[in-house]
Amino acid sequence: MDLHLPYIRFQEPHDDREREREMEEQVELVGRAFVDHYYQLFDTDRAALSSLYQPTSMLTFEGQKVLGAHAISEKFMQLPFDKCQHHISTIDSQPSSTSGGIVVFVSGSLALPGEEHQLRFGQMFHLIPSTGGSFFVQNDMFRLNYG
Amino acid sequence: MDLHLPYIRFQEPHDDREREREMEEQVELVGRAFVDHYYQLFDTDRAALSSLYQPTSMLTFEGQKVLGAHAISEKFMQLPFDKCQHHISTIDSQPSSTSGGIVVFVSGSLALPGEEHQLRFGQMFHLIPSTGGSFFVQNDMFRLNYG
Repeated sequence: MDLHLPYIRFQEPHDDREREREMEEQVELVGRAFVDHYYQLFDTDRAALSSLYQPTSMLTFEGQKVLGAHAISEKFMQLPFDKCQHHISTIDSQPSSTSGGIVVFVSGSLALPGEEHQLRFGQMFHLIPSTGGSFFVQNDMFRLNYG
Repeated sequence: MDLHLPYIRFQEPHDDREREREMEEQVELVGRAFVDHYYQLFDTDRAALSSLYQPTSMLTFEGQKVLGAHAISEKFMQLPFDKCQHHISTIDSQPSSTSGGIVVFVSGSLALPGEEHQLRFGQMFHLIPSTGGSFFVQNDMFRLNYG
């Protein structure tokens, strides 16, 4: 038995690092898949965004606070532009301290109809696992970035 | 007893709203105080930033991942500029789903020595209460925002 211990000891940190890397990759993948899905909906079927929020969800949009999926959906539908196109520059994701939760930080630009220049924006999401293996948005903060 | 019920029922939602508003203000105050403290340290005493992180803390700085207070502090000390000045444009804060936790989203600009133009940046923090009534940074993601 003793002969096998060094081997086991050597393997353990290796497996830990492997597990860490796998978890890191998983978190990145979920973050990217969520971001793709979110802005795809925003740009083509904005009403459907409400399915990503829950009654406890919080949105701060350009400093304005909105609570709950229903009010958040209303806020999106009342924005003063019909069509828009988000272009994503960066997506960073980390596991949050909430079990299975993920914080996602996005930067990009927003093209609005009739606007010559795209508007830079930053947005962060806190995603929480929901039943059925998917995620919902608990925290959402959006800001245009004036240069 | 029945006569008092409507009165009690009327008071409860009122108190709830009051409590909600107070909590919201508290969260905003903590977020702003943290941001002031954080960038003040960053610009005048960068080594002291390590006290705001713990061994579990995660930093993603311009896409580069760093784990733990020690490595994060090293990363900050090795940045290729000695002096800098952060100017904060917006601070948004929300309670996170972690008990007592707060997510903070900052936009601003960074002045570096010898650089004519300030660099726009976005940064998000997930603050977790620590013993002794203060907070530590569990998640930190920083990105320069190229226009």
